[in-house]
Amino acid sequence: MNSDMLIRITRYFRALNRLRAIGLEKVFAHNLADAAGVSAAVVRKDFSILEIHGQKRGGYEITELIDRISKILGKGDPQNIIVVGCGRIGKALMHYTGFEPDGIRVVAGFDSDPIVYSDASHPVPVYPMSRLEEMVEALGVKVAIITVPEAAAADTAEKLLEAGVKGILNFSPITLKPHPENPAVIHNINIALELEQIFYQLQFPESRMK
Amino acid sequence: MNSDMLIRITRYFRALNRLRAIGLEKVFAHNLADAAGVSAAVVRKDFSILEIHGQKRGGYEITELIDRISKILGKGDPQNIIVVGCGRIGKALMHYTGFEPDGIRVVAGFDSDPIVYSDASHPVPVYPMSRLEEMVEALGVKVAIITVPEAAAADTAEKLLEAGVKGILNFSPITLKPHPENPAVIHNINIALELEQIFYQLQFPESRMK
Repeated sequence: MNSDMLIRITRYFRALNRLRAIGLEKVFAHNLADAAGVSAAVVRKDFSILEIHGQKRGGYEITELIDRISKILGKGDPQNIIVVGCGRIGKALMHYTGFEPDGIRVVAGFDSDPIVYSDASHPVPVYPMSRLEEMVEALGVKVAIITVPEAAAADTAEKLLEAGVKGILNFSPITLKPHPENPAVIHNINIALELEQIFYQLQFPESRMK
Repeated sequence: MNSDMLIRITRYFRALNRLRAIGLEKVFAHNLADAAGVSAAVVRKDFSILEIHGQKRGGYEITELIDRISKILGKGDPQNIIVVGCGRIGKALMHYTGFEPDGIRVVAGFDSDPIVYSDASHPVPVYPMSRLEEMVEALGVKVAIITVPEAAAADTAEKLLEAGVKGILNFSPITLKPHPENPAVIHNINIALELEQIFYQLQFPESRMK
């Protein structure tokens, strides 16, 4: 499965959970196509690659589809994550419930500032950075979100990998790359860069062609 | 210029501003290559396409490069943005200063909740949604960040486009697509989807190949 297909499958999965939540039992390829921004033919092709078959003209059973896709996406495993850097963006993510329909839950925060980690008002426990390794092991956490200031990002990523974290979603403005000797999965979300690109594409519409 | 090149150029630009801020005057292709995660040969090729020439073995003058690239990126124009939806993530973005080195500034927020827009503690003015059109025009804003709940996202995007906004960075979990008849630039940042993909790629390392 390539990454475009993976993105589509995760979109189908989210749409299916929402459709089930509102009480639907069946879904058609074109419903999922709308949700994922592709054509119904693409949905049918993806399902045929995954060996998912619908009933003739009856569409697909939502519960069956969810079971099947959750196995493909490895949803049986606990998907606990931590937030490292509990400033404004980190705090907002600790409160964010938008991951929960996907079975992803923030279980702890980490910060180097005693004022932050002594504050009892957080929705999950916040620990000092010195307890990172211990708590990552205790909580069985594999994935972390980095929301530390730019200057601390590279160092934080290194500490996370040393603590046994395998996947990082980096919100700091520097681009983190995986080490050749540590094949962690690192995704970078660079808000400033996205805005830059939008401004650029507005100024030079021909740059949007690709 | 294709979008990969655009991403590199904006990365060079950010790196140059930071290098200048710490007092450097000259930069070499390999410095920018490190910052952008490419090889020095790619930097030299990009610069040659943009008709930027360094001195023989002397590298590039940082100030000249910044001037040149800021013209290419259209940095002369004011890059004021608004945040629509002033919940936790919206508030964090209103306080975020990481755009400022790029000349991007949040000038106002909008929210439909009187408790939110009557609160005087925000770092920028927050207006009720009913004043969106008026204020977008008054502030000359072309780009907005959407941080409203999922159920309100599509409607908010429509209102923004009607008010004359041309570019949207969407943080809500639904994927917004440009209307065929309104060629706005829309970028979607889907945090849950990024996390899903990380978990998936950890489970199926072969999916990372592409």
